[in-house]
Formats: sequence, C-alpha cells, structure tokens
Amino acid sequence: MKAIIVKPPHPGVEITEINEADNYGKVKIRTLYNGICGTDREIVNGKLTFSNLPKGKNFLVLGHEAIGVVEESGYGFSQGDLVMPVNRRGCGVCRNCLIGRPDFCETGQFVEAGISGIDGFMREEWYDDPRYLVKIPKTLEDIGILAQPLADIEKSVEEIFNIQKRVPVWSCDDGTFNCKKALILGTGPIGILFTLVLRTMGLEVWITNRREPTEIEQTFIEETGTNYFNSSNGYDKLRESIGKFDLIIDATGADAGILNQVIPLLGRNGVLGLFGFPISGAFSMNFSKIQDAISANNVIVGLVNGQKPHFQQALVHLASWKTLYPKSSKLLITKTVSINEEKEILKVLREKEYGEIKVKIVWK
Amino acid sequence: MKAIIVKPPHPGVEITEINEADNYGKVKIRTLYNGICGTDREIVNGKLTFSNLPKGKNFLVLGHEAIGVVEESGYGFSQGDLVMPVNRRGCGVCRNCLIGRPDFCETGQFVEAGISGIDGFMREEWYDDPRYLVKIPKTLEDIGILAQPLADIEKSVEEIFNIQKRVPVWSCDDGTFNCKKALILGTGPIGILFTLVLRTMGLEVWITNRREPTEIEQTFIEETGTNYFNSSNGYDKLRESIGKFDLIIDATGADAGILNQVIPLLGRNGVLGLFGFPISGAFSMNFSKIQDAISANNVIVGLVNGQKPHFQQALVHLASWKTLYPKSSKLLITKTVSINEEKEILKVLREKEYGEIKVKIVWK
Amino acid sequence: MKAIIVKPPHPGVEITEINEADNYGKVKIRTLYNGICGTDREIVNGKLTFSNLPKGKNFLVLGHEAIGVVEESGYGFSQGDLVMPVNRRGCGVCRNCLIGRPDFCETGQFVEAGISGIDGFMREEWYDDPRYLVKIPKTLEDIGILAQPLADIEKSVEEIFNIQKRVPVWSCDDGTFNCKKALILGTGPIGILFTLVLRTMGLEVWITNRREPTEIEQTFIEETGTNYFNSSNGYDKLRESIGKFDLIIDATGADAGILNQVIPLLGRNGVLGLFGFPISGAFSMNFSKIQDAISANNVIVGLVNGQKPHFQQALVHLASWKTLYPKSSKLLITKTVSINEEKEILKVLREKEYGEIKVKIVWK
Amino acid sequence: MKAIIVKPPHPGVEITEINEADNYGKVKIRTLYNGICGTDREIVNGKLTFSNLPKGKNFLVLGHEAIGVVEESGYGFSQGDLVMPVNRRGCGVCRNCLIGRPDFCETGQFVEAGISGIDGFMREEWYDDPRYLVKIPKTLEDIGILAQPLADIEKSVEEIFNIQKRVPVWSCDDGTFNCKKALILGTGPIGILFTLVLRTMGLEVWITNRREPTEIEQTFIEETGTNYFNSSNGYDKLRESIGKFDLIIDATGADAGILNQVIPLLGRNGVLGLFGFPISGAFSMNFSKIQDAISANNVIVGLVNGQKPHFQQALVHLASWKTLYPKSSKLLITKTVSINEEKEILKVLREKEYGEIKVKIVWK
Repeated sequence: MKAIIVKPPHPGVEITEINEADNYGKVKIRTLYNGICGTDREIVNGKLTFSNLPKGKNFLVLGHEAIGVVEESGYGFSQGDLVMPVNRRGCGVCRNCLIGRPDFCETGQFVEAGISGIDGFMREEWYDDPRYLVKIPKTLEDIGILAQPLADIEKSVEEIFNIQKRVPVWSCDDGTFNCKKALILGTGPIGILFTLVLRTMGLEVWITNRREPTEIEQTFIEETGTNYFNSSNGYDKLRESIGKFDLIIDATGADAGILNQVIPLLGRNGVLGLFGFPISGAFSMNFSKIQDAISANNVIVGLVNGQKPHFQQALVHLASWKTLYPKSSKLLITKTVSINEEKEILKVLREKEYGEIKVKIVWK
Repeated sequence: MKAIIVKPPHPGVEITEINEADNYGKVKIRTLYNGICGTDREIVNGKLTFSNLPKGKNFLVLGHEAIGVVEESGYGFSQGDLVMPVNRRGCGVCRNCLIGRPDFCETGQFVEAGISGIDGFMREEWYDDPRYLVKIPKTLEDIGILAQPLADIEKSVEEIFNIQKRVPVWSCDDGTFNCKKALILGTGPIGILFTLVLRTMGLEVWITNRREPTEIEQTFIEETGTNYFNSSNGYDKLRESIGKFDLIIDATGADAGILNQVIPLLGRNGVLGLFGFPISGAFSMNFSKIQDAISANNVIVGLVNGQKPHFQQALVHLASWKTLYPKSSKLLITKTVSINEEKEILKVLREKEYGEIKVKIVWK
Repeated sequence: MKAIIVKPPHPGVEITEINEADNYGKVKIRTLYNGICGTDREIVNGKLTFSNLPKGKNFLVLGHEAIGVVEESGYGFSQGDLVMPVNRRGCGVCRNCLIGRPDFCETGQFVEAGISGIDGFMREEWYDDPRYLVKIPKTLEDIGILAQPLADIEKSVEEIFNIQKRVPVWSCDDGTFNCKKALILGTGPIGILFTLVLRTMGLEVWITNRREPTEIEQTFIEETGTNYFNSSNGYDKLRESIGKFDLIIDATGADAGILNQVIPLLGRNGVLGLFGFPISGAFSMNFSKIQDAISANNVIVGLVNGQKPHFQQALVHLASWKTLYPKSSKLLITKTVSINEEKEILKVLREKEYGEIKVKIVWK
Repeated sequence: MKAIIVKPPHPGVEITEINEADNYGKVKIRTLYNGICGTDREIVNGKLTFSNLPKGKNFLVLGHEAIGVVEESGYGFSQGDLVMPVNRRGCGVCRNCLIGRPDFCETGQFVEAGISGIDGFMREEWYDDPRYLVKIPKTLEDIGILAQPLADIEKSVEEIFNIQKRVPVWSCDDGTFNCKKALILGTGPIGILFTLVLRTMGLEVWITNRREPTEIEQTFIEETGTNYFNSSNGYDKLRESIGKFDLIIDATGADAGILNQVIPLLGRNGVLGLFGFPISGAFSMNFSKIQDAISANNVIVGLVNGQKPHFQQALVHLASWKTLYPKSSKLLITKTVSINEEKEILKVLREKEYGEIKVKIVWK
C-alpha cells in the first residue's frame, strides 16, 4: 500500500509503496485524513532526537494525526464509523499506563505512532485496538483532525486546573474563572488552540507575538474577545497596563529566553506552563527571582501529551466552537492537499507555510 | 410595565401592569425570552411550600429563566449583549456565598428570583448586577434559555464526579468514562438533559419510563446512542440483562417509591443522585440493604442548584450539541408563545403539555 | 501448630492443633498478639452470613487482627521486626485492587483473612507477602493491635473529607475544621476511635448512647474535650441546644431505626456516614425528608475497610495519642488473655464484656 | 514591659523596656517561650529586605515563634491554657485571607508578626484574637515551640501532595507512598523536619549535605530509617546508585546553584520543591533540560508559610514523634536560654550555633 515513510535519525521523506507495516488490533481502518504538525517536520528534517525506527525495521511510517473509516463492523464499531487513533501507547507495566494514562507513564517506555518505535498513520489503512480509537462525529469530519493536537492542550489545561486545587480558592467572586488572566506566548496553532480553550472556559486571555497580528489572527482575536499584545519591545508595557497574570503558557517552541522576559509578569499563586519544546536558549532565575517565586507560591510545570479522555474533550470543544466561534472554527484548517499531489505533500512536510494553522492530507 | 405575577402561597397567576419591582443593580436589561418549568407551575398552582413573597410586598413577579438584552453599554457589557440572570442569590454572610457559590449556602438564607423572596424576570425589564449576569452568545439565542435548567444538571454532574474522586480509580481502562453505566429515571426535560450531558462525557446511558418512548424521545435516543428501558414491569429484566449501574439519577419528580425499586441496581462504588423533588411516597432501606450499601461503598446524594460557572458550562454544552446532536438540539424547545397571547400563556403556566421539554415565552 | 478455628456457616469455635493453613508469601511471621472484634464473635456465633471457608477446606483459621514478629531477615524486613497483616486482599483483576486499594474493589471478589475465603491469623505462625505487611514500631507494641480496626476508621474519615471537597469551602474562618460539628452514635470501640480521630483533627464532637456515660467513657470524654449526650429520650434536646451537625456517624451496629431519629439533625452540606452494620430495623425517608436532603446537599455514604495506607495513618494517630491523650490511650486495651487460658479465650470469643474496647490475645 | 526589639532595615537588636506594643484581640497571654530562627537573625543583621516597622512606629518587637499562657478565661480559652500565635495575618480583602488561608493571599498585603508590619511576641505579654491562637497540649510544652516552623513544612507537604493529584496514580502498588523517593537538600532544622514528616508518611528519604553527618544527624538518620548522602563530590554517585527521585526539596537556604546539580535527579512526574530562600547564585535550565522537564511532567513549586490548620497538624506530628522517634524528638531543642541571660540572648539572636536545630528562650 501507499505510505509516507521516514528513516530517523536521517533526514528525508518519501511517498512509496510498502509491503507491510505495524498493526495494533483487529479493527480495520482505511485512512481518510492526516494532519501535519511541527513534530512531523522535525522528523523529516532529521532534527527530532527522540524519533526512532520500529524494532528491527529500516523505515517508519510517518503520521500521528489521522482520521479513518472503519471498514467492517465489529469490536464496538460499525462499518462507516469515523475514528481517530490515540498516538501515544503505554509501556504496559506502570500503574498509569495500566489505567489508560500513558501521558503520565512512570517508566518512559511508551511508544508514539509515527514518531518513535511504532508506525504511524500516513498510509492507506491499518488495524487497531478499540482501546486506542476515538469515535469522530460525522459533523466534525471537516475539522476533527484537530482533535489530536487539541488533546494535548486539553490535558495541559486539565493538569493546570488540577494543580491549582492547591489554592483554597482559585475561582472569582462569582464562582467562575472570568477574572483570571492568562498570557499565551505565540500565535501558532498551539497558541490559538490554548486561547480558544481558555476563552471557552471564561478566562481573560492575552496572546502575544513580536509583531502586529495577521488578518487571520485578528479574526480569532475579535471573535473570541481575546486581547493582543505586540511584544517586539518586550513586556514592560503589558505589565504596566494589565499587571500580573494568573497563568502564562509558553506556546512558542522557540528560544527559552522568552521565559526570562515573562517570569516577572507571573502573579501570586500563578502557574507558568511549559508546552512548546524550546530549541535554543536558557531560562535562568537568580536567587532573588527564586525568592519571589517562593513568596508568591508560583508553579512551573511541564505539559505534554493528551490521552483518550482528552481527545474526547477536544471533540466537544471543536463541536462547541462551530456555534461559539463560527468564523474561527472555519479558519483552523488552512490548507488541504490530496495524497496524489506528491510534490505538494513533500513540500508541506518539509516546511511550514506562512499563516498555517493546520494542513490536512486527504486520502481520496 | 407588564409582568406575570403570583401571590404565594395562594394559587393563581395574572398578567398585569405593575408599577415597580425588585432590581438588583445598574445594568438595564429588556426581557426577550422566559422559560417555564415545573417549579413555576407549582407556584401557580399553590403547591410550592417554600415560595415566598418579597419582603413587605403583596405579589411576586414570576420567572427564574430569562434571556434579556442589555439596553445601555457599561459595567462590562455592551448595548445589545444578550444576558441571562443567575436566579439564586447568596445569603451574603456564609463562606460559600461570599465566593459566588450559594448552591452550597451554609445558612439557607439565600433568595431565588421568581421563587422565594425576590422578584423574577417575567416582566418587561429589570436592572441587575454584572455578578449575576451570564453572557449568551448570539448563536445560542434560540436554545440558550435552556442554560438555566441545564446549569442545575451541570452542577449535579460536577458534584457527582467530585464525590467519585473518593475512589482511587473511577475511570476505565482507556482513561475515559466510556465503560461507566448510568441509569436515568424519567424522560422529562431533566432526564433528557442529564442524558445529553452524560452521553457528551462518554458514559453509557439507559433512560427509563413506564411506557414505550414517544417519537421525540426516540429521536433523542437514536441520535445520542442512548438505551431505552420500559420499566412498566419493574427493573428486574434490566438488572438481568445489563447488571448493575455506576450511577442512578432520579429525575422523575414523582413518587419516592421508585428508589426502592432501583436501589438493588446500584453497583459497587456507585452513586444514587436525588435530583427531582419527589411529591409522594417514601424511600426505605431495611438493615440488610444498608449492609449492602456499606459493603459496596455506596453514596446517596441530594443534587440542587447550578451557579454562574454551571450556566457557562451549560452554554458550552448547548453549543456543542448543535454539532454533536443537531436533531436533538432542535427538539429542545417544544413550544413558543408570545407574551401577547395571554390566554395561551396562562394555560402553559398552569399545566404541562404532553411531550413538552421547554416552553419559551417571547417578549416581542 | 496451635490455632483457633471456626467452621462457618456453623456456629462454634475451637482451639486445636492443625497441620497446615493458608500462607501468602515468603516472610515467616510468629504470632505475638491477636485482637478480637465483633466480627469474630458473629462468625463464632454463626451469624455472619458472608463468612466462608477457604476453598476446598473444612475449617477456617479465625483472626483478622494480629501482630507478629518476623523470624528471618529478608524481603525488606529484619528478624525481630514487628508486623501487622492487612486483612482484606484484592481480587487481582480490577483497577483498584491492582493499585493496592481493594477497599474499593470493583468486582467484590476480594477475600478477607479469618473472615471469608482465606485463613486468618489466630495461629502460631504464618508466611506473608511484604505487600500486605505493615511495620509496627516497637514503641507501639502495647496498643498497636488497634491499628486494624482503626484503619477502617481512618479510611472512613479520609473518604468523608474527600467527598466534602464537593463543597467549595468546607473549612472554617480560620482554615481549620474546629467549627465543624460531628455527632457519633454509639460509645463502643468504633465510636470511641472515631471520636479520637475527629478530635485529633480539631472537630467538635458529640458522642451519644441511651444512658449516662460509664466511668471509662467519662475519662475519654474529659481528656479529649468531647461532649456527651444521653439519647434515652431521643435527640430533640440535642437539636434544640446545639443545632444541626456537619457530620453524623452511625457506629452503633444495632437497629437501623436510629437513623430515622438523627436524620433531622443533619445540617446543610452535611454527611451521614454509615459505618456499623445494622442488624435490625429500617431507615426510611418520606418524600418530604428527601426534599430536605436534596435542598441541603446532603450525602449518605457507606463506609467500609481500611487498607495499608490507612493502617499506617492509624499508627501515627495511635503514636500521637500517647502524648495527646495519655490516659485514654492506656484505656484502649481493656483485657489481655494468654492463649493458654483456653476457657477464657473461648469465652471472650463468644461474648463481649461490659465496657470492653479491645481484648488482646497474647501468644506466649 | 520587657521586649526584644529591632529597627529594620537597620541591623541591631536590644532587650529593653517598652511602653506599648501592637495587640490583636482580647485574649490576654503571658509569654512562656520564644523560638529563634534564621529569619530573626536576618532581621537582626539587617539583611531581610522585606522586614518593615509597624506603621508609624520606630521599632518592631521581634519574634514570630511563641508559646504563651492564657491569663484569664474567656473567648473559648481557660486560664492556664497554653497557646501559640499564628504569625502571618491576612490582608482582610482577598478570598483566601477571608477563609483563613493568607498563605495563599492574593494581594500580598498580609502582615507577619515580628517580621513585617506588626509587632512580634518576644515580649512579656500580648492580647490576641482566638482566630489566630492554636492550643498547645500540656504534654507538648517541651517541644511545642517547633510547631511554628513545622507548620510551614506541613503546608508544603500538603501542597505537594495536592499538586500530585494531577497524576492519575501517584501511590505505590500497595496503596501507600512507601515506594516514593524523596531527596532533601540540607541537614538544618528545615531539612530535619521535612525528613521527619516524610518518613512519618512512609516515603523513602535521602538527606544530603557536603560533609559526613554529625553525631546528632546520625541519630536522626538511624532512628527514622533515613539514608544519608555526602554531596561534597556532587550527586553523580547518588544518581548511579539510587536513580531518580519523585520529590526533591531544597532546604538549604544557601546558593541557588545547587538546583542545577540536582535537577538531573528529578524523575518522571516528579516535583522540585523550593523552600529555603537562596541567598546567592542562580538556577538555570537550558532548552534541552526544559525539554526533559516537559517530557517528564515535572513541576517546580515555591513553598511558603503554614497557617492554623498546619500548626494543628504539626502538633499531631510532634506528639506522634515522641512515640515513633523518641530519641530524635528529644534532640530537636538544642539550646534553652533564659530571657534574663541578656548577653547570651543577644548572641544567639546574631549567629547560629554549630549543630543547632532550635534555640528556645524561656520567659521565667
């Protein structure tokens, strides 16, 4: 069958015919769509150090974002059901993996389809275990592919809210979170999705980049009632005008030095969430800043990987946004490419386009 | 202005001109819609024992479900914003009311607009405090009125899930709640809304009534993947075929004797949620059934009143259902009556119609 | 070896030589002490319906409360270490049993040493798995046997406090639980231990029985600052003088009818904890009382079985009571009998003595 | 009356007669004991930048650790009761201060007796509000003064365990925390007290300093079953022999650079707790270490200030240690000085003695 394959740690990607690939169960699924994300591109460009070939194989099928259609009824599914695979799969021995939560795997021996250890889903079909399949409503066929990256954000937000239960009262005078201020660093897909989730939950959100917002960003901002801050001259003016933030999320995946700039904006009982993998720089707190962080009950937390419950929550949010943020929800898929347009596929797998939120590959 | 008034504890209702009514703040709101629920009818029929007149007054403006439009910008709102009032308002002294959670008022000295102690919203306009106002997205103008009854259900489900954190692991093998079985007693609006919320969260749901489902119920059941059980001959067959339930919700608001019938279906670590006010009968557990409840770590919990965070969650669910359950979401408003059709208004305020889910009064 | 055996469901008990008994692991333990509780007596008197013989055997070694001494170093223990076995052991398949919490077993297929399915510890020695062994500090050799019954209470209190996290603020104005009022029904060992735990946590406690307190009860009451109420004429006077309670615990193990008497004393957001197995009567709530329970956010919860973490917490409390309540801690063991006094052993296994809190069998 | 006063930000301390000092309520208390801690010495040496005089005054009564005796019955106390004041007092306006939890004050406008804004307790007597008074059992008169510093640790441990509820299962196979590994940096009083609390809770503990343990440390280590690691050559050997830790606590209050050394020892789902105020150096994570922290779900949290519930928990632990760790509990007070030995008092207020855990001033 046709597949998109890579050979980590070597750079490169090809669309080719393969004879066999990993399968994980008995539900036969024909691929309809794949999503492309930054992680795919890092593998293609030979930069993702933890990407590995499946054991004993000399290539890896790429792709951890997929929607497929069930080919034969059984195992709790009906022919024609749309499904999305959960990409990280547990180590099989630790307590959290045993109860379906390899996002908190204790051994680190999990695998990730299309990334490390097992084949991904950029191929015509695969067989899977119902345990790892999430049903996609037909009415979300258009934007459902976003449930995979969004699941990571749902898990992150859930974890932050769990952490904040350490504060006796972290809600506002009216019992909501409407008075809580969140600062999102970065206007890429991750920053946009964090903004949508937090606005849906009622928080006030400021999103920042080192430039004026693009037209598409402007639409998101206006429709969701988000604030924009151009950080090209640093964050002093933001601090002066708005004060401190209850939540700061790094969604840049760029230089870690940005954390040094924003840590002074973290308020009492506040949380700094590290989501995007920084690729250069360092975050440094001198003794005086550490004293401040202690006095202010601050938390810094690493945020990673959503699991099946978070995929399900992502679908509820995607469904709600069609009503709550109809314009924004239509802007989330910025490009669709047919699997037959090989040259274009290879191009989008190598580099991110300007203004891209999500690129979708269509298998038909 | 025109208003619908009652004089508890006396039965009766009239549409009349009034000179003044209670106001709660500075945001001027013109009423667009009211919803009617069973509580309104109990007041109208003189049966709600805890309904009281506002202090020193001889009538009460009815209505605790409302959507209005903000008439003048200010206080965080813009002219034209749609808003819904939160009906229960705190005692002003206890810890939970001080932090916006009078649903857990410690003194019991709260008031409820249109029910006890302060005027409701079946009137042309009122002034309110931003603290008690929930913004309604324009895209939910059609079914947003359901956010009030749905808020009570959101709070109930939140409370049950909070209670279940007593169980070290209450999720399924895949980290979701997809394996958990809920039994909903009653197919009225409350039963339907509980079903929609729990299905959205992934639980398996059985809904019951002592007859075959109506056509409209059949639509809900099919679209949401809910199971139906006709309990006219008791619950033995359900127990035999399905086994025990993790969650049983009484949404009948009828005879308490139903609890005696269903308690044997409550499984280990299970919760029986009491939502609907029973109006006759008794629930009795002999020593042997109490032994079983102890051995099985069972919880019985009284569920009441959603607050502002639950109204907001209700709106997210209503928004999502337009996409997830499009047919069902169109069936939720079963009747719309203009405030000018006085005879019809008085009729729907006195008695529930066959198949009614929500009746909406339109003020224009 | 010598052992105390029973043959459920038949009444009777004998001290006899046995050739073999169940073992559970590789740690060799010589029995030093056993405790006797009401459950043992119900088995001896043929009244505990769920007591079963080990599979394929015709007797059951009695005893679920024991302290032994490790005979050979290894498996994390040193020769001479004092250890106590955890009596309930998991089903081996459900999620909660897999993570060491068979108190919330989902299948009900757990076993309980000395009660149902596997041999207990009223025998000269046994072999066990470290997983089920709790180290007993030498300084608690005297009263450590109470850690088993106390573990059940620690779990119950932990569960109640977990449940109360449903209430946004359940603590007092000073952040403590000092303003919370608990009513303990019954002055037996369970009632006394609940009182000690809740007083240690700072709650105000009222303990009741249908008579004036005994001299020994008077000592507990005075030393711990507990209030006593003689309920021989019902609870009206208690309600009039004190008002409602945040927590009511049934520790009587008697007639369930007492619950009908005390439910009107349960306050807003309050919890009724069912601990003692009632042996007659019924608890009945008519529709009006159910309405009250709903309006007041009440919870009724069945409380059962402590596990290893609760045994450890029990030891910390027992240790603290030697300092906090030195007189009371000396009154907890009301009788000590040598295993060689066979007649006396058989007598204490058949009937409870007046004023008994804990009877201890000494194996030396 | 006699008092020990300071004049921040100026260095210096004197024992003098004063005419008046701040009072906080109606309960008259005569001082029996004060404790001295590092914060006192920083004020005395003019190094605590956030120490402030009470408004409009030119001196500050030092002392935030005290036990006094109630002089007149009333307000819930009896003459002769021993009490300890809670030192941090709320801002009066934020939600957490209103419910008795100024440890999570949102405004930062709290005051701390003897440190900033209001007078402390190194004086003959003061008047206080019952809300801020913790009863001290007579049997803890000897070591009860440790409840103040210990309260900060109780709060820290409670907060860490609350944060870890983000992990679906953070307990061990037997439901306990016995398999969890904690690394405590520093063998001063804070390190010792953290060790005692965590050992009481069952965790495995390693405590480190850059030298061999002192004799007194050796006693603590042996009695509590703690492990010792000499970190004079770094932490590589610890990592090789033991692996990673679930919890690392910085209790050094020294150079922040130690964090750079230990962060590689933090395991998956692990927490780095910052307790001691570092006084030099910096903690730096380059992009690669941040990637690791994200992948491993790590949390870094600032830990500060215990409130009344934590003082109460501290007393329970102190009481239990008399039984669990009798030798260690006798070593906690390393020096006692009479208020009349002025020269000695001034000396201990200026510099820490070798091997000091807690120095107690006796007012009689």
